[in-house]
Amino acid sequence: MPDIADPRLADYANLRDVELRKSMEAEHGLFIAEGEKVIRRAVAAGYPVRSVLLTPRWAEPLADVLDGLGDRVYVVDDAVVEGITGFPVHRGALAAMERLPVPTVARLLSGLPDGSPGEGPVAPPRRVVVLEDLVDHGNVGAIFRCAAALGVEAVVLSPRCADPLYRRSVKVSMGAVFAIPYARMADWYGGLAELREAGFQTLALTPDQSATPIDRVAMAERVALLLGSEGDGLSSRWLREADEAVCIPMSPAAMDLGVDSLNVVAAAAIACHGLMRGGSADPPRRRG
Amino acid sequence: MPDIADPRLADYANLRDVELRKSMEAEHGLFIAEGEKVIRRAVAAGYPVRSVLLTPRWAEPLADVLDGLGDRVYVVDDAVVEGITGFPVHRGALAAMERLPVPTVARLLSGLPDGSPGEGPVAPPRRVVVLEDLVDHGNVGAIFRCAAALGVEAVVLSPRCADPLYRRSVKVSMGAVFAIPYARMADWYGGLAELREAGFQTLALTPDQSATPIDRVAMAERVALLLGSEGDGLSSRWLREADEAVCIPMSPAAMDLGVDSLNVVAAAAIACHGLMRGGSADPPRRRG
Repeated sequence: MPDIADPRLADYANLRDVELRKSMEAEHGLFIAEGEKVIRRAVAAGYPVRSVLLTPRWAEPLADVLDGLGDRVYVVDDAVVEGITGFPVHRGALAAMERLPVPTVARLLSGLPDGSPGEGPVAPPRRVVVLEDLVDHGNVGAIFRCAAALGVEAVVLSPRCADPLYRRSVKVSMGAVFAIPYARMADWYGGLAELREAGFQTLALTPDQSATPIDRVAMAERVALLLGSEGDGLSSRWLREADEAVCIPMSPAAMDLGVDSLNVVAAAAIACHGLMRGGSADPPRRRG
Repeated sequence: MPDIADPRLADYANLRDVELRKSMEAEHGLFIAEGEKVIRRAVAAGYPVRSVLLTPRWAEPLADVLDGLGDRVYVVDDAVVEGITGFPVHRGALAAMERLPVPTVARLLSGLPDGSPGEGPVAPPRRVVVLEDLVDHGNVGAIFRCAAALGVEAVVLSPRCADPLYRRSVKVSMGAVFAIPYARMADWYGGLAELREAGFQTLALTPDQSATPIDRVAMAERVALLLGSEGDGLSSRWLREADEAVCIPMSPAAMDLGVDSLNVVAAAAIACHGLMRGGSADPPRRRG
Protein backbone atom coordinates (compact mmCIF):
# COMPACT_ATOMS: atom_id res chain seq x y z
CA MET A 1 0.00 0.00 0.00
CA PRO A 2 1.56 3.34 -1.05
CA ASP A 3 2.00 6.02 1.60
CA ILE A 4 1.39 9.77 1.58
CA ALA A 5 4.84 10.59 0.28
CA ASP A 6 4.68 8.19 -2.68
CA PRO A 7 5.55 10.24 -5.79
CA ARG A 8 3.15 8.17 -7.89
CA LEU A 9 0.33 9.86 -5.99
CA ALA A 10 1.39 13.40 -6.87
CA ASP A 11 -1.62 13.80 -9.20
CA TYR A 12 -3.87 13.75 -6.14
CA ALA A 13 -2.01 16.19 -3.93
CA ASN A 14 -3.76 19.04 -2.12
CA LEU A 15 -7.06 18.92 -3.96
CA ARG A 16 -8.42 21.86 -1.98
CA ASP A 17 -5.63 24.23 -2.97
CA VAL A 18 -7.34 25.83 -5.95
CA GLU A 19 -4.40 27.89 -7.20
CA LEU A 20 -1.93 25.02 -6.92
CA ARG A 21 -4.31 22.62 -8.66
CA LYS A 22 -5.05 25.04 -11.50
CA SER A 23 -1.42 25.41 -12.47
CA MET A 24 -0.58 21.76 -11.85
CA GLU A 25 -3.49 20.41 -13.87
CA ALA A 26 -2.72 22.76 -16.76
CA GLU A 27 0.94 21.78 -16.73
CA HIS A 28 0.33 18.05 -16.62
CA GLY A 29 -2.84 18.01 -18.71
CA LEU A 30 -4.87 16.17 -16.12
CA PHE A 31 -8.08 16.47 -14.17
CA ILE A 32 -9.68 14.62 -11.26
CA ALA A 33 -12.95 12.69 -11.36
CA GLU A 34 -14.50 11.83 -7.99
CA GLY A 35 -16.85 8.97 -7.18
CA GLU A 36 -17.89 5.88 -9.10
CA LYS A 37 -20.64 7.44 -11.20
CA VAL A 38 -18.57 10.40 -12.38
CA ILE A 39 -15.48 8.25 -13.05
CA ARG A 40 -17.60 5.93 -15.20
CA ARG A 41 -18.98 8.86 -17.19
CA ALA A 42 -15.49 10.25 -17.81
CA VAL A 43 -14.29 6.85 -19.01
CA ALA A 44 -17.38 6.38 -21.19
CA ALA A 45 -16.74 9.81 -22.73
CA GLY A 46 -13.30 8.61 -23.84
CA TYR A 47 -10.98 10.35 -21.40
CA PRO A 48 -7.93 8.16 -20.74
CA VAL A 49 -7.32 7.12 -17.13
CA ARG A 50 -3.88 7.97 -15.73
CA SER A 51 -4.50 6.20 -12.41
CA VAL A 52 -7.15 5.52 -9.76
CA LEU A 53 -6.81 6.14 -6.02
CA LEU A 54 -9.41 4.33 -3.94
CA THR A 55 -10.26 2.78 -0.60
CA PRO A 56 -10.61 -1.02 -0.44
CA ARG A 57 -14.39 -1.10 -0.54
CA TRP A 58 -14.47 0.50 -4.00
CA ALA A 59 -12.17 -2.06 -5.65
CA GLU A 60 -15.02 -4.48 -6.32
CA PRO A 61 -17.66 -2.02 -7.68
CA LEU A 62 -15.04 -0.44 -9.96
CA ALA A 63 -13.38 -3.73 -10.99
CA ASP A 64 -14.21 -3.34 -14.69
CA VAL A 65 -12.79 0.21 -14.79
CA LEU A 66 -9.63 -0.86 -12.98
CA ASP A 67 -9.11 -3.80 -15.29
CA GLY A 68 -6.14 -3.12 -17.54
CA LEU A 69 -4.72 -0.28 -15.43
CA GLY A 70 -2.12 -2.64 -13.93
CA ASP A 71 0.01 -0.95 -11.31
CA ARG A 72 -1.74 2.40 -11.73
CA VAL A 73 -4.45 1.40 -9.24
CA TYR A 74 -3.67 2.60 -5.72
CA VAL A 75 -5.73 1.03 -2.98
CA VAL A 76 -5.18 2.90 0.28
CA ASP A 77 -7.10 3.51 3.47
CA ASP A 78 -9.17 6.59 4.27
CA ALA A 79 -6.42 8.22 6.31
CA VAL A 80 -3.97 8.03 3.40
CA VAL A 81 -6.54 9.47 0.97
CA GLU A 82 -7.15 12.32 3.38
CA GLY A 83 -3.42 12.80 3.97
CA ILE A 84 -2.71 13.13 0.25
CA THR A 85 -5.73 15.09 -0.91
CA GLY A 86 -6.13 17.24 2.19
CA PHE A 87 -9.75 16.35 2.93
CA PRO A 88 -11.96 13.32 3.63
CA VAL A 89 -13.08 11.92 0.27
CA HIS A 90 -16.58 10.66 0.99
CA ARG A 91 -16.99 9.03 -2.37
CA GLY A 92 -13.98 6.79 -1.75
CA ALA A 93 -12.57 6.80 -5.29
CA LEU A 94 -10.64 9.37 -7.30
CA ALA A 95 -9.37 9.03 -10.85
CA ALA A 96 -6.65 11.13 -12.44
CA MET A 97 -7.70 11.51 -16.08
CA GLU A 98 -5.93 12.88 -19.17
CA ARG A 99 -7.41 16.01 -20.70
CA LEU A 100 -8.15 15.91 -24.42
CA PRO A 101 -7.84 18.76 -26.91
CA VAL A 102 -10.78 21.17 -26.73
CA PRO A 103 -12.24 22.05 -30.16
CA THR A 104 -12.13 25.58 -31.49
CA VAL A 105 -15.39 27.56 -31.29
CA ALA A 106 -15.73 27.42 -35.08
CA ARG A 107 -15.42 23.67 -35.09
CA LEU A 108 -17.83 23.26 -32.17
CA LEU A 109 -20.46 25.40 -33.88
CA SER A 110 -20.18 23.53 -37.16
CA GLY A 111 -20.66 20.18 -35.41
CA LEU A 112 -17.91 17.76 -34.52
CA PRO A 113 -17.67 15.47 -37.55
CA ASP A 114 -14.97 13.25 -36.15
CA GLY A 115 -16.52 13.16 -32.74
CA SER A 116 -15.99 14.73 -29.38
CA PRO A 117 -14.48 12.43 -26.78
CA GLY A 118 -16.16 9.07 -26.91
CA GLU A 119 -19.04 10.10 -29.13
CA GLY A 120 -19.91 9.65 -32.73
CA PRO A 121 -20.46 12.60 -35.05
CA VAL A 122 -22.29 15.51 -33.43
CA ALA A 123 -24.79 17.59 -35.39
CA PRO A 124 -24.32 21.37 -35.53
CA PRO A 125 -25.78 22.72 -32.27
CA ARG A 126 -28.85 24.94 -32.39
CA ARG A 127 -29.06 25.87 -28.71
CA VAL A 128 -25.83 27.10 -27.13
CA VAL A 129 -24.98 28.66 -23.76
CA VAL A 130 -22.08 31.13 -23.57
CA LEU A 131 -20.47 31.74 -20.17
CA GLU A 132 -18.61 35.02 -19.68
CA ASP A 133 -16.01 34.96 -16.90
CA LEU A 134 -17.81 32.85 -14.30
CA VAL A 135 -15.42 32.38 -11.40
CA ASP A 136 -17.12 29.70 -9.31
CA HIS A 137 -16.41 26.13 -10.39
CA GLY A 138 -19.57 24.87 -8.71
CA ASN A 139 -21.67 27.30 -10.74
CA VAL A 140 -20.00 26.23 -13.99
CA GLY A 141 -20.70 22.57 -13.18
CA ALA A 142 -24.31 23.28 -12.18
CA ILE A 143 -24.94 25.22 -15.39
CA PHE A 144 -23.53 22.36 -17.50
CA ARG A 145 -25.93 20.01 -15.72
CA CYS A 146 -28.93 22.27 -16.36
CA ALA A 147 -27.90 22.95 -19.92
CA ALA A 148 -27.46 19.28 -20.77
CA ALA A 149 -30.72 18.27 -19.09
CA LEU A 150 -32.66 20.99 -20.89
CA GLY A 151 -31.48 20.31 -24.40
CA VAL A 152 -28.66 22.82 -24.80
CA GLU A 153 -26.26 21.17 -27.23
CA ALA A 154 -22.98 22.98 -26.64
CA VAL A 155 -21.30 25.45 -24.28
CA VAL A 156 -18.88 28.22 -25.25
CA LEU A 157 -16.59 29.68 -22.56
CA SER A 158 -15.02 33.11 -22.47
CA PRO A 159 -11.23 33.04 -22.25
CA ARG A 160 -11.28 33.67 -18.48
CA CYS A 161 -14.27 31.50 -17.51
CA ALA A 162 -13.60 28.86 -14.82
CA ASP A 163 -12.56 25.39 -15.98
CA PRO A 164 -15.35 22.79 -16.47
CA LEU A 165 -12.89 19.98 -15.75
CA TYR A 166 -11.80 21.33 -12.38
CA ARG A 167 -12.73 18.77 -9.70
CA ARG A 168 -15.59 20.74 -8.22
CA SER A 169 -17.09 21.59 -11.63
CA VAL A 170 -17.01 17.93 -12.61
CA LYS A 171 -18.56 16.85 -9.31
CA VAL A 172 -21.38 19.40 -9.24
CA SER A 173 -22.16 18.71 -12.90
CA MET A 174 -22.63 15.01 -12.04
CA GLY A 175 -20.55 14.31 -15.14
CA ALA A 176 -22.57 16.56 -17.48
CA VAL A 177 -19.29 18.28 -18.43
CA PHE A 178 -18.52 15.05 -20.31
CA ALA A 179 -21.95 14.84 -21.90
CA ILE A 180 -22.06 18.20 -23.63
CA PRO A 181 -19.27 19.45 -25.90
CA TYR A 182 -17.67 22.80 -25.19
CA ALA A 183 -15.06 25.17 -26.58
CA ARG A 184 -13.17 28.15 -25.25
CA MET A 185 -12.98 31.45 -27.11
CA ALA A 186 -9.49 32.61 -28.00
CA ASP A 187 -10.64 36.22 -27.90
CA TRP A 188 -13.13 37.87 -25.57
CA TYR A 189 -13.40 41.18 -27.39
CA GLY A 190 -14.46 39.73 -30.72
CA GLY A 191 -15.95 36.55 -29.28
CA LEU A 192 -19.56 37.22 -30.19
CA ALA A 193 -18.75 37.97 -33.83
CA GLU A 194 -17.97 34.31 -34.42
CA LEU A 195 -21.37 33.30 -33.04
CA ARG A 196 -23.17 35.80 -35.23
CA GLU A 197 -21.24 34.67 -38.30
CA ALA A 198 -22.39 31.12 -37.58
CA GLY A 199 -25.97 32.38 -37.73
CA PHE A 200 -26.69 32.48 -34.01
CA GLN A 201 -29.16 34.91 -32.50
CA THR A 202 -27.42 36.15 -29.34
CA LEU A 203 -29.59 36.70 -26.24
CA ALA A 204 -27.98 38.52 -23.31
CA LEU A 205 -29.54 37.52 -19.97
CA THR A 206 -29.79 40.49 -17.63
CA PRO A 207 -31.61 41.26 -14.37
CA ASP A 208 -32.82 44.49 -16.04
CA GLN A 209 -36.61 44.16 -15.95
CA SER A 210 -37.05 46.37 -19.01
CA ALA A 211 -35.52 43.63 -21.20
CA THR A 212 -37.72 41.14 -23.08
CA PRO A 213 -39.04 38.35 -20.81
CA ILE A 214 -37.30 35.11 -21.80
CA ASP A 215 -40.63 33.39 -22.48
CA ARG A 216 -41.65 36.04 -25.00
CA VAL A 217 -38.58 36.13 -27.23
CA ALA A 218 -39.10 35.23 -30.87
CA MET A 219 -36.36 32.66 -31.32
CA ALA A 220 -34.32 32.01 -34.41
CA GLU A 221 -33.22 28.60 -35.66
CA ARG A 222 -29.91 28.96 -33.82
CA VAL A 223 -29.85 30.67 -30.42
CA ALA A 224 -26.93 31.48 -28.09
CA LEU A 225 -27.80 32.46 -24.52
CA LEU A 226 -25.15 34.68 -22.91
CA LEU A 227 -24.68 34.40 -19.12
CA GLY A 228 -22.48 36.78 -17.16
CA SER A 229 -20.30 36.40 -14.09
CA GLU A 230 -21.67 35.99 -10.58
CA GLY A 231 -21.05 39.49 -9.29
CA ASP A 232 -21.26 41.82 -12.22
CA GLY A 233 -23.27 39.98 -14.84
CA LEU A 234 -22.42 40.43 -18.50
CA SER A 235 -19.84 42.99 -19.60
CA SER A 236 -21.21 46.14 -21.15
CA ARG A 237 -19.53 45.15 -24.42
CA TRP A 238 -21.39 41.86 -24.69
CA LEU A 239 -24.66 43.43 -23.55
CA ARG A 240 -24.29 46.05 -26.28
CA GLU A 241 -23.27 43.54 -28.96
CA ALA A 242 -26.01 41.00 -28.29
CA ASP A 243 -29.02 40.91 -30.60
CA GLU A 244 -31.45 41.22 -27.72
CA ALA A 245 -31.41 41.61 -23.94
CA VAL A 246 -33.67 39.13 -22.16
CA CYS A 247 -34.74 38.89 -18.52
CA ILE A 248 -36.55 36.63 -16.10
CA PRO A 249 -39.52 38.54 -14.75
CA MET A 250 -39.28 39.05 -11.00
CA SER A 251 -42.02 39.59 -8.49
CA PRO A 252 -42.57 43.32 -7.81
CA ALA A 253 -43.20 42.44 -4.15
CA ALA A 254 -39.79 40.73 -4.00
CA MET A 255 -38.08 43.79 -5.36
CA ASP A 256 -39.71 45.81 -2.56
CA LEU A 257 -38.37 43.30 -0.05
CA GLY A 258 -34.83 43.64 -1.37
CA VAL A 259 -34.74 40.22 -3.05
CA ASP A 260 -33.88 41.65 -6.40
CA SER A 261 -32.00 38.93 -8.23
CA LEU A 262 -31.63 35.22 -8.77
CA ASN A 263 -28.32 33.45 -8.51
CA VAL A 264 -26.70 32.63 -11.86
CA VAL A 265 -27.58 28.92 -11.71
CA ALA A 266 -31.27 29.53 -10.99
CA ALA A 267 -31.36 32.15 -13.74
CA ALA A 268 -29.59 29.79 -16.15
CA ALA A 269 -32.05 26.99 -15.36
CA ILE A 270 -35.08 29.17 -16.09
CA ALA A 271 -33.51 30.60 -19.23
CA CYS A 272 -32.46 27.18 -20.59
CA HIS A 273 -35.98 25.94 -19.95
CA GLY A 274 -37.17 28.94 -21.97
CA LEU A 275 -34.82 28.05 -24.84
CA MET A 276 -36.30 24.57 -24.92
CA ARG A 277 -39.75 26.04 -25.33
CA GLY A 278 -38.45 27.98 -28.30
CA GLY A 279 -37.43 24.73 -29.90
CA SER A 280 -40.44 22.72 -28.85
CA ALA A 281 -42.27 22.85 -32.16
CA ASP A 282 -39.21 21.29 -33.73
CA PRO A 283 -37.42 19.18 -31.14
CA PRO A 284 -33.63 19.26 -30.93
CA ARG A 285 -31.86 16.74 -33.09
CA ARG A 286 -30.39 13.86 -31.20
CA ARG A 287 -26.75 13.06 -31.58
CA GLY A 288 -26.12 9.82 -33.37
CA MET B 1 -10.58 43.36 23.06
CA PRO B 2 -12.11 39.99 24.12
CA ASP B 3 -10.08 36.85 23.50
CA ILE B 4 -11.04 33.41 22.21
CA ALA B 5 -11.98 32.07 25.62
CA ASP B 6 -14.29 34.96 26.51
CA PRO B 7 -17.63 33.41 27.56
CA ARG B 8 -19.53 36.34 26.07
CA LEU B 9 -18.52 35.00 22.64
CA ALA B 10 -20.01 31.53 23.16
CA ASP B 11 -22.80 32.28 20.65
CA TYR B 12 -20.18 32.28 17.87
CA ALA B 13 -18.34 29.09 18.76
CA ASN B 14 -17.51 26.42 16.18
CA LEU B 15 -19.74 27.66 13.39
CA ARG B 16 -18.72 24.79 11.13
CA ASP B 17 -19.79 22.08 13.56
CA VAL B 18 -23.29 21.51 12.19
CA GLU B 19 -24.50 19.11 14.87
CA LEU B 20 -23.21 21.23 17.74
CA ARG B 21 -24.70 24.38 16.25
CA LYS B 22 -28.09 22.79 15.63
CA SER B 23 -28.56 21.77 19.27
CA MET B 24 -27.00 24.94 20.63
CA GLU B 25 -29.09 27.29 18.48
CA ALA B 26 -32.28 25.42 19.36
CA GLU B 27 -31.46 25.51 23.06
CA HIS B 28 -30.60 29.18 23.16
CA GLY B 29 -33.09 30.34 20.53
CA LEU B 30 -30.49 32.08 18.43
CA PHE B 31 -29.16 32.17 14.89
CA ILE B 32 -26.20 33.75 13.14
CA ALA B 33 -26.35 36.36 10.38
CA GLU B 34 -23.15 36.91 8.40
CA GLY B 35 -22.06 40.02 6.52
CA GLU B 36 -23.35 43.58 6.51
CA LYS B 37 -26.16 43.11 3.98
CA VAL B 38 -27.65 40.04 5.64
CA ILE B 39 -27.34 41.50 9.14
CA ARG B 40 -29.20 44.60 7.97
CA ARG B 41 -31.99 42.50 6.48
CA ALA B 42 -32.38 40.50 9.69
CA VAL B 43 -32.58 43.69 11.72
CA ALA B 44 -35.05 45.25 9.28
CA ALA B 45 -37.21 42.13 9.55
CA GLY B 46 -37.46 42.69 13.29
CA TYR B 47 -35.17 40.03 14.72
CA PRO B 48 -33.59 41.30 17.95
CA VAL B 49 -29.77 41.48 18.00
CA ARG B 50 -28.08 39.60 20.87
CA SER B 51 -24.60 40.81 19.96
CA VAL B 52 -22.29 41.58 17.03
CA LEU B 53 -18.78 40.20 16.50
CA LEU B 54 -16.79 42.14 13.93
CA THR B 55 -13.35 43.17 12.76
CA PRO B 56 -12.37 46.85 13.14
CA ARG B 57 -13.01 47.82 9.53
CA TRP B 58 -16.72 46.96 9.81
CA ALA B 59 -17.38 49.19 12.84
CA GLU B 60 -17.90 52.28 10.70
CA PRO B 61 -20.18 50.80 7.96
CA LEU B 62 -22.32 49.13 10.64
CA ALA B 63 -22.32 52.07 13.07
CA ASP B 64 -26.10 52.58 12.91
CA VAL B 65 -26.78 48.88 13.60
CA LEU B 66 -24.33 48.84 16.52
CA ASP B 67 -25.80 51.95 18.05
CA GLY B 68 -27.67 51.04 21.20
CA LEU B 69 -26.06 47.62 21.61
CA GLY B 70 -23.70 48.99 24.26
CA ASP B 71 -21.22 46.39 25.45
CA ARG B 72 -22.67 43.68 23.21
CA VAL B 73 -20.45 44.79 20.32
CA TYR B 74 -17.22 42.79 20.14
CA VAL B 75 -14.53 44.26 17.92
CA VAL B 76 -11.74 41.73 17.47
CA ASP B 77 -9.09 40.99 14.88
CA ASP B 78 -9.32 38.36 12.12
CA ALA B 79 -7.34 35.79 14.07
CA VAL B 80 -9.73 35.96 17.02
CA VAL B 81 -12.77 35.64 14.76
CA GLU B 82 -11.19 32.60 13.14
CA GLY B 83 -10.20 31.18 16.51
CA ILE B 84 -13.72 31.40 17.87
CA THR B 85 -15.74 30.44 14.82
CA GLY B 86 -13.31 27.88 13.42
CA PHE B 87 -12.95 29.42 9.98
CA PRO B 88 -11.92 32.69 8.31
CA VAL B 89 -15.00 34.92 8.13
CA HIS B 90 -14.55 36.78 4.87
CA ARG B 91 -17.48 39.10 5.44
CA GLY B 92 -15.92 40.40 8.65
CA ALA B 93 -19.12 40.76 10.69
CA LEU B 94 -21.33 38.25 12.44
CA ALA B 95 -24.47 38.95 14.42
CA ALA B 96 -26.06 36.60 16.93
CA MET B 97 -29.81 37.16 16.60
CA GLU B 98 -32.82 36.04 18.63
CA ARG B 99 -35.22 33.69 16.92
CA LEU B 100 -38.89 34.63 16.96
CA PRO B 101 -41.89 32.32 17.23
CA VAL B 102 -42.71 30.67 13.89
CA PRO B 103 -46.44 30.81 13.01
CA THR B 104 -48.49 27.65 12.69
CA VAL B 105 -49.25 26.47 9.16
CA ALA B 106 -52.92 27.41 9.60
CA ARG B 107 -52.01 30.92 10.62
CA LEU B 108 -49.49 31.30 7.80
CA LEU B 109 -52.03 30.19 5.21
CA SER B 110 -54.71 32.53 6.50
CA GLY B 111 -52.34 35.49 6.33
CA LEU B 112 -50.51 37.00 9.26
CA PRO B 113 -52.84 39.68 10.57
CA ASP B 114 -50.60 40.89 13.34
CA GLY B 115 -47.52 40.72 11.17
CA SER B 116 -44.57 38.48 10.66
CA PRO B 117 -41.29 39.85 12.04
CA GLY B 118 -40.95 43.48 11.12
CA GLU B 119 -43.73 43.57 8.60
CA GLY B 120 -47.25 44.85 8.56
CA PRO B 121 -50.24 42.59 7.93
CA VAL B 122 -49.64 39.95 5.27
CA ALA B 123 -52.39 38.93 2.86
CA PRO B 124 -53.30 35.23 2.61
CA PRO B 125 -50.70 33.67 0.30
CA ARG B 126 -51.79 32.27 -3.05
CA ARG B 127 -48.49 30.74 -4.16
CA VAL B 128 -46.77 28.54 -1.62
CA VAL B 129 -43.75 26.22 -1.78
CA VAL B 130 -43.68 23.18 0.51
CA LEU B 131 -40.30 21.57 1.26
CA GLU B 132 -40.29 17.92 2.32
CA ASP B 133 -37.20 16.85 4.28
CA LEU B 134 -34.50 18.80 2.43
CA VAL B 135 -31.23 18.15 4.24
CA ASP B 136 -28.88 20.70 2.69
CA HIS B 137 -28.99 24.16 4.26
CA GLY B 138 -27.58 25.75 1.13
CA ASN B 139 -30.41 24.30 -0.95
CA VAL B 140 -33.02 25.56 1.52
CA GLY B 141 -31.52 29.05 1.37
CA ALA B 142 -31.28 29.01 -2.43
CA ILE B 143 -34.90 27.91 -2.76
CA PHE B 144 -36.06 30.73 -0.44
CA ARG B 145 -34.18 33.17 -2.65
CA CYS B 146 -35.78 31.82 -5.85
CA ALA B 147 -39.20 31.61 -4.27
CA ALA B 148 -39.11 35.17 -2.98
CA ALA B 149 -37.78 36.56 -6.26
CA LEU B 150 -40.42 34.74 -8.28
CA GLY B 151 -43.47 35.78 -6.30
CA VAL B 152 -43.98 32.82 -3.99
CA GLU B 153 -45.58 34.31 -0.89
CA ALA B 154 -44.91 31.71 1.80
CA VAL B 155 -42.95 28.53 2.47
CA VAL B 156 -44.14 25.52 4.47
CA LEU B 157 -41.52 23.11 5.85
CA SER B 158 -41.98 19.45 6.69
CA PRO B 159 -41.16 18.60 10.31
CA ARG B 160 -37.69 17.31 9.37
CA CYS B 161 -36.74 19.88 6.72
CA ALA B 162 -33.44 21.73 7.32
CA ASP B 163 -33.60 25.03 9.23
CA PRO B 164 -33.92 28.23 7.13
CA LEU B 165 -32.20 30.22 9.90
CA TYR B 166 -29.09 28.04 10.00
CA ARG B 167 -26.08 30.19 9.08
CA ARG B 168 -25.55 28.69 5.65
CA SER B 169 -29.25 28.87 4.73
CA VAL B 170 -29.35 32.54 5.69
CA LYS B 171 -26.17 33.29 3.76
CA VAL B 172 -27.12 31.49 0.54
CA SER B 173 -30.60 33.02 0.66
CA MET B 174 -29.02 36.51 0.74
CA GLY B 175 -31.50 37.25 3.49
CA ALA B 176 -34.57 36.02 1.59
CA VAL B 177 -35.37 33.81 4.61
CA PHE B 178 -36.32 37.08 6.34
CA ALA B 179 -38.34 38.36 3.40
CA ILE B 180 -40.79 35.51 2.99
CA PRO B 181 -42.83 34.11 5.89
CA TYR B 182 -42.65 30.40 6.66
CA ALA B 183 -44.14 27.81 8.99
CA ARG B 184 -43.24 24.28 9.97
CA MET B 185 -45.76 21.43 9.91
CA ALA B 186 -46.33 19.70 13.22
CA ASP B 187 -47.22 16.49 11.41
CA TRP B 188 -45.75 15.06 8.22
CA TYR B 189 -48.28 12.30 7.67
CA GLY B 190 -51.31 14.55 7.61
CA GLY B 191 -49.45 17.66 6.49
CA LEU B 192 -51.04 18.01 3.08
CA ALA B 193 -54.58 17.80 4.45
CA GLU B 194 -54.18 21.22 6.01
CA LEU B 195 -53.16 22.70 2.67
CA ARG B 196 -56.12 21.14 0.90
CA GLU B 197 -58.50 22.36 3.59
CA ALA B 198 -57.20 25.87 3.01
CA GLY B 199 -58.18 25.50 -0.63
CA PHE B 200 -54.74 24.89 -2.10
CA GLN B 201 -54.23 22.85 -5.24
CA THR B 202 -51.18 20.67 -4.42
CA LEU B 203 -48.69 20.07 -7.24
CA ALA B 204 -46.02 17.41 -6.64
CA LEU B 205 -42.82 18.09 -8.61
CA THR B 206 -41.29 14.86 -9.88
CA PRO B 207 -38.62 13.94 -12.43
CA ASP B 208 -41.14 11.44 -13.88
CA GLN B 209 -41.58 12.59 -17.47
CA SER B 210 -45.08 11.17 -17.70
CA ALA B 211 -46.32 13.85 -15.27
CA THR B 212 -47.92 17.09 -16.53
CA PRO B 213 -45.30 19.62 -17.72
CA ILE B 214 -45.24 22.50 -15.24
CA ASP B 215 -46.03 25.02 -17.99
CA ARG B 216 -49.22 23.21 -18.97
CA VAL B 217 -50.90 22.85 -15.58
CA ALA B 218 -54.27 24.50 -15.17
CA MET B 219 -53.69 26.42 -11.97
CA ALA B 220 -56.20 27.16 -9.26
CA GLU B 221 -56.45 30.40 -7.32
CA ARG B 222 -54.23 28.96 -4.56
CA VAL B 223 -51.37 26.65 -5.51
CA ALA B 224 -48.85 24.78 -3.32
CA LEU B 225 -45.77 23.37 -5.07
CA LEU B 226 -44.32 20.35 -3.25
CA LEU B 227 -40.54 19.80 -3.52
CA GLY B 228 -38.85 16.64 -2.25
CA SER B 229 -35.49 15.93 -0.70
CA GLU B 230 -32.22 15.97 -2.63
CA GLY B 231 -31.69 12.25 -2.96
CA ASP B 232 -35.07 10.62 -3.02
CA GLY B 233 -37.48 13.33 -4.08
CA LEU B 234 -40.97 13.40 -2.61
CA SER B 235 -42.22 10.59 -0.39
CA SER B 236 -44.64 8.17 -2.02
CA ARG B 237 -47.29 9.33 0.43
CA TRP B 238 -47.09 12.96 -0.65
CA LEU B 239 -46.86 11.99 -4.32
CA ARG B 240 -50.01 9.93 -3.93
CA GLU B 241 -51.87 12.58 -1.93
CA ALA B 242 -51.07 15.51 -4.21
CA ASP B 243 -53.74 16.73 -6.62
CA GLU B 244 -51.41 16.46 -9.59
CA ALA B 245 -47.86 15.35 -10.39
CA VAL B 246 -45.93 17.90 -12.44
CA CYS B 247 -42.55 17.68 -14.17
CA ILE B 248 -40.00 19.79 -15.95
CA PRO B 249 -39.61 18.40 -19.46
CA MET B 250 -36.09 17.14 -20.06
CA SER B 251 -34.23 16.78 -23.31
CA PRO B 252 -34.52 13.21 -24.67
CA ALA B 253 -30.91 13.49 -25.85
CA ALA B 254 -29.83 14.32 -22.28
CA MET B 255 -31.57 11.26 -20.93
CA ASP B 256 -29.60 9.17 -23.46
CA LEU B 257 -26.40 10.78 -22.18
CA GLY B 258 -27.20 9.90 -18.57
CA VAL B 259 -28.01 13.47 -17.52
CA ASP B 260 -31.44 12.54 -16.28
CA SER B 261 -32.26 15.06 -13.59
CA LEU B 262 -31.88 18.63 -12.42
CA ASN B 263 -30.71 19.52 -8.95
CA VAL B 264 -33.47 20.57 -6.59
CA VAL B 265 -32.62 24.29 -6.75
CA ALA B 266 -32.65 24.40 -10.56
CA ALA B 267 -35.90 22.44 -10.60
CA ALA B 268 -37.40 24.75 -7.95
CA ALA B 269 -36.38 27.83 -9.95
CA ILE B 270 -38.05 26.59 -13.12
CA ALA B 271 -41.15 25.46 -11.26
CA CYS B 272 -41.53 28.74 -9.33
CA HIS B 273 -41.16 30.60 -12.61
CA GLY B 274 -43.98 28.38 -13.90
CA LEU B 275 -46.15 29.25 -10.91
CA MET B 276 -45.67 32.92 -11.66
CA ARG B 277 -46.93 32.38 -15.18
CA GLY B 278 -50.03 30.78 -13.69
CA GLY B 279 -50.67 33.95 -11.75
CA SER B 280 -49.66 36.37 -14.46
CA ALA B 281 -53.18 37.30 -15.55
CA ASP B 282 -53.82 38.38 -11.99
CA PRO B 283 -50.56 39.52 -10.41
CA PRO B 284 -49.77 38.53 -6.82
CA ARG B 285 -51.03 40.94 -4.21
CA ARG B 286 -48.34 43.00 -2.58
CA ARG B 287 -47.97 42.98 1.12
CA GLY B 288 -48.70 46.22 2.80
